[in-house]
Amino acid sequence: MTDSMLAGVELGGTKCVCVLATRAGEILAEERVDTLAPEITLPQIKQVLARWFGAGRPIGGLGIASFGPVDIDGASPRWGHIGQTPKPGWAGIAVAQELGEGLGVPIALDTDVNGAALAELRWGAAAGLEDFAYVTIGTGVGVGLIVGGKPIAGFGHSELGHMRIARVPGDTWPGSCPYHGDCVEGLAAGPAIVQRSGMRASLIAADDPIWHLVGHAIAQMLHNIVLTATPRRIFLGGGVMAAQPQLFPIIRRELQASLAGYVSSPELDRIDDYVTAPGLGTRAGPLGPIALAAALAPQAVRQVIPAA
Amino acid sequence: MTDSMLAGVELGGTKCVCVLATRAGEILAEERVDTLAPEITLPQIKQVLARWFGAGRPIGGLGIASFGPVDIDGASPRWGHIGQTPKPGWAGIAVAQELGEGLGVPIALDTDVNGAALAELRWGAAAGLEDFAYVTIGTGVGVGLIVGGKPIAGFGHSELGHMRIARVPGDTWPGSCPYHGDCVEGLAAGPAIVQRSGMRASLIAADDPIWHLVGHAIAQMLHNIVLTATPRRIFLGGGVMAAQPQLFPIIRRELQASLAGYVSSPELDRIDDYVTAPGLGTRAGPLGPIALAAALAPQAVRQVIPAA
Repeated sequence: MTDSMLAGVELGGTKCVCVLATRAGEILAEERVDTLAPEITLPQIKQVLARWFGAGRPIGGLGIASFGPVDIDGASPRWGHIGQTPKPGWAGIAVAQELGEGLGVPIALDTDVNGAALAELRWGAAAGLEDFAYVTIGTGVGVGLIVGGKPIAGFGHSELGHMRIARVPGDTWPGSCPYHGDCVEGLAAGPAIVQRSGMRASLIAADDPIWHLVGHAIAQMLHNIVLTATPRRIFLGGGVMAAQPQLFPIIRRELQASLAGYVSSPELDRIDDYVTAPGLGTRAGPLGPIALAAALAPQAVRQVIPAA
Repeated sequence: MTDSMLAGVELGGTKCVCVLATRAGEILAEERVDTLAPEITLPQIKQVLARWFGAGRPIGGLGIASFGPVDIDGASPRWGHIGQTPKPGWAGIAVAQELGEGLGVPIALDTDVNGAALAELRWGAAAGLEDFAYVTIGTGVGVGLIVGGKPIAGFGHSELGHMRIARVPGDTWPGSCPYHGDCVEGLAAGPAIVQRSGMRASLIAADDPIWHLVGHAIAQMLHNIVLTATPRRIFLGGGVMAAQPQLFPIIRRELQASLAGYVSSPELDRIDDYVTAPGLGTRAGPLGPIALAAALAPQAVRQVIPAA
């Protein structure tokens, strides 16, 4: 094949990862760039890409998996632009156009969590599943909800982590989300845990009652995901889940209690397999943009940005 | 065309509607059958269908839009069967097989609300929209969530009306859902309103505070739908919405307050158009199975049930 390689950029809140990989998902090179102002960070990423594309390698496409909000609607004039974000300087930046400029390859763009979900579908624990949810609980709560093999989308991308949910009776802590207070992210993400407990999550005992509150919030979100999309499986990853494995049994129990037998399926009966850890670990993030690029077909080409 | 007509059956909780219509959605005949035990009701429906199919008319397919839970997974051995339901005698009944037997035409099966949503897409207010939600607030809360032109589905069909949501602070009424108490249906469906108020909804004043509580619950569900699927529009129908139009401004206001500016889109900015009434009125239900049958293509044929 003449384009057996793909390039990717994962744009994250604290760091960006540039990846060069084969179409089979084997990572050939990986370079990190701190996420500072876009005038600093984007040229650094472009330097890495220029080096890779300039080395005479046959690279068939560029995938960009970005923090949100980002306009991923191919029919929108704002496609490729970052939306309103508290990240200084990033609102309105045309990340896809800037990064793809002059490379002469098609660009695929989606959110970081949708990219990671598609990487799990292509190379990880979701292989063979058309309908599943990939959830990360970390500095935020992100959900890649895959329906019929594709991330759910309408006028924009999913922001499921900001769902409204029922609280544990009597728990009135207001939550940490600056927009919604006690949405899922405001109750279960890392900053919420730190703010509520007053200490780093790693210092909280595994049997501390806070984990019941965190697990309950996540289970309520899963209740809503199950009743919305009836996914074949739900993968729970991210820093909080990796560091606090005691959350898994709490979430499974609370999900079953909340569903109360209303939905039955062979999948749900095997709850330990149904709510489970993803397969790619820390590789899911960097492989996300590669999975996006790998899905590019000639008819699916969104943009080829010519040199300025 | 030799098969310019389609037959449909809407299986409802209190009545079933048999429909004969053109592919253009013009209803030619409509007959109602009470929903009693399946041994009584299904033969009555079959009699109607046999009459229509036996009259030498060219009928190209049968659509069935059923109450849930019903197995709509074409790969499942239980396809066409009603699931666990409190309706006496109906659990486990193979409705698609029974109704389609001997007709010699392909059968399309989905839930009643998904059928109605697809009728709105084909002939109603959702024309031209690939991504929208069709919500009915009546004896239950049903949502047809259409993603990329198709009802969202995984191992089963959506049951979004049973979402877990945040309550109005201080409101501790336990809700009327026998499974979940204060899920959306348990707070906003007709029976919940009757149970909470102690009177028929039609006797409650339009400015009674209960409408704020009902509207808030619906708005919380819409918040979650918006953040999940970012639909281009949300249609609110059903008996409660038709009888209580004062709910519309309450729901719009509460939805905007709940989203708190987190999601922005031109669609959401026009909130009166975004959260709006459906177009087909009482025809959406009967046209649901016709829309399902109209979507049948040779390659999409699920089942042709031969004569016994």
